[in-house]
Amino acid sequence: MSSEKFSFSLLKEDHQARLGKINTYRGKIDTPTFMPVGTQATVKSVFIDDLIMTGSQIILSNTYHLMIRPGVERIKRVGGLHEFMNCNLPILTDSGGFQIMSLSKFVKIDKKKGAIFNSHIDGKKFILSPEESIKIQKDIDSDIIMVLDECPKLTNDKNIINKSLDVSIDWAKRSKIEFGDNPKKAIFGIIQGGIFKDLRMESLEKTKEIDFDGYALGGLAVGETQKQMFKVLDDIVPSMPKNKPRYLMGVGTPKDLLGAVKRGIDMFDCVIPTRAGRTGLAYTWQGKINLRNSKYQKDDTPIDQDLKIKNLNKYSKSYINHLINSNEILASMLLTFNNICFYQELMNKIRENIKNNTFDEFYNKYIGII
Amino acid sequence: MSSEKFSFSLLKEDHQARLGKINTYRGKIDTPTFMPVGTQATVKSVFIDDLIMTGSQIILSNTYHLMIRPGVERIKRVGGLHEFMNCNLPILTDSGGFQIMSLSKFVKIDKKKGAIFNSHIDGKKFILSPEESIKIQKDIDSDIIMVLDECPKLTNDKNIINKSLDVSIDWAKRSKIEFGDNPKKAIFGIIQGGIFKDLRMESLEKTKEIDFDGYALGGLAVGETQKQMFKVLDDIVPSMPKNKPRYLMGVGTPKDLLGAVKRGIDMFDCVIPTRAGRTGLAYTWQGKINLRNSKYQKDDTPIDQDLKIKNLNKYSKSYINHLINSNEILASMLLTFNNICFYQELMNKIRENIKNNTFDEFYNKYIGII
Repeated sequence: MSSEKFSFSLLKEDHQARLGKINTYRGKIDTPTFMPVGTQATVKSVFIDDLIMTGSQIILSNTYHLMIRPGVERIKRVGGLHEFMNCNLPILTDSGGFQIMSLSKFVKIDKKKGAIFNSHIDGKKFILSPEESIKIQKDIDSDIIMVLDECPKLTNDKNIINKSLDVSIDWAKRSKIEFGDNPKKAIFGIIQGGIFKDLRMESLEKTKEIDFDGYALGGLAVGETQKQMFKVLDDIVPSMPKNKPRYLMGVGTPKDLLGAVKRGIDMFDCVIPTRAGRTGLAYTWQGKINLRNSKYQKDDTPIDQDLKIKNLNKYSKSYINHLINSNEILASMLLTFNNICFYQELMNKIRENIKNNTFDEFYNKYIGII
Repeated sequence: MSSEKFSFSLLKEDHQARLGKINTYRGKIDTPTFMPVGTQATVKSVFIDDLIMTGSQIILSNTYHLMIRPGVERIKRVGGLHEFMNCNLPILTDSGGFQIMSLSKFVKIDKKKGAIFNSHIDGKKFILSPEESIKIQKDIDSDIIMVLDECPKLTNDKNIINKSLDVSIDWAKRSKIEFGDNPKKAIFGIIQGGIFKDLRMESLEKTKEIDFDGYALGGLAVGETQKQMFKVLDDIVPSMPKNKPRYLMGVGTPKDLLGAVKRGIDMFDCVIPTRAGRTGLAYTWQGKINLRNSKYQKDDTPIDQDLKIKNLNKYSKSYINHLINSNEILASMLLTFNNICFYQELMNKIRENIKNNTFDEFYNKYIGII
């Protein structure tokens, strides 16, 4: 355990790209950082020990999924999520806002009561208030807690977004109050506002007023184009507090990460590397490749000659192609591991280049390839 | 690499149970040994490095599966199966006889040409002669090669078994000739004869005449009762050569292994520990448990408090139950690893007890439990 108090240090800027360090009760996190996603209390297809070998320093898990299955009690009674899933890394938990929008079968938003929804597993009815979401995240002993937000689907209807902002700000205030005084943990606010600059700015200002340990951009990676997403970053990031971590939720591809770091983002999470690994896709420094393709039957070279961790460079593309075609679990295990390694190597190189004032060169070299 | 020549040393006998050591070009194997099954060039759900951590010293793979997919050429061109699947352990390959009986859609046995069958994957027609089976096993650089046998389904019809013996003995001779002089490798004969003592004895005598590096009992674990199987062992094993490894193919449960070691068997292979792991079953020193059972939702203890390898004792039954219910791959990974660990720990204890002349006490203590 490092120093118990949550803190963020901005160590270096290279134009708008930032090098920093987050201190948590459970360990330090070098930023910009990528958080592998452990939705159901496991990062799919990876042992935690192996995940740590990739250089991952924090993972994300989901209040929505955990409250539905296995339920909070089973996690709480063993001391929290770290003990339940046998993970010593810091854990950030999403509040449930995004999953209620994207997964549950019926949602009614009641500003006072919370989000009323039916589980996507068995239809069981749940009510998630901001207080309840924070209480759950504290009960499962999350290190970085997210406020409950109303996360509208992508829309061009400004009225819908405007109306949801009112709810989200109210819920953010109540989330902060419920969080209370808890220096071992952090609570992050979430900025909404869709693709509208004035609404994003309004959300940012009101969220800043509440005062959080970090600020996230929510309501992105919901179907908008990359150009629209970067436009929001260009509009908003320069006005975000400099001395707090900036977290772009649910993003993204390697190109997304490069573009968002360039615009001043510090934290990311995304299912892309793990999900891609389970569908036969490998991220490499020469771009993404689909190992299902029959041309790899003839390719005896490894995905990456330099990837010596866990002997990954000893497995040929032909072999992995065979594993995929034979529905072998080892294919998912190898490719997931490869992809998380790639993402963490990317973040590592990003940090090095910011440190050396060479981020723009690095960006220009790889933005067209990876 | 150890000494290049294949050999077997019988180190100790405790009644009929035997402690021995097999020397192969790729490493030593302490017997009695259990070989995890890597049918499709992977032991399902396990990294090879982790498999080695369980104490596994040799694995089994299947000529039948590999010739169909990915095909021999892809394996041969990288130097063999060890290179293809990135495995430095010795590999024993089954000849295809058993799988042609159990899996393929149509089989015609032509004593001269071989087994004519259609692939269970795509119906493609193959002809596997004894010469071809051995050639494939040499091409993929197997360390222990099995003769091609005709493996009839379980039957009480003595004529069927009798007729198949004639084919199997002819194929065994041709297999031995095709194998030729190859001191870095071994070739094992397979004794057939169903549940009939006289046919088993005839098969044993004729197989011994051909002279192999080891002798396997085939045509068991095909549906007969454990009592019938042990009767065959009681009938035959005392007449098997003492100075050669004795291999009981496709067996079995922990109880099967205890009973067969007691009767003088040295080698085993079986899909049970790996397959069970993928269906929520865990082998323990208190017996087999089904972690799907909802009672484990309330059980925060590990499967085995003493199983510290890869922190297996840090995962609770409640957590694994959650992973199974959530269809998480980590459930298969953890349980497969647990089960191979259990099997190898069992073999290790078996060897220790033979060494200490206490095998019978060990057998009596656990035969009713595991």
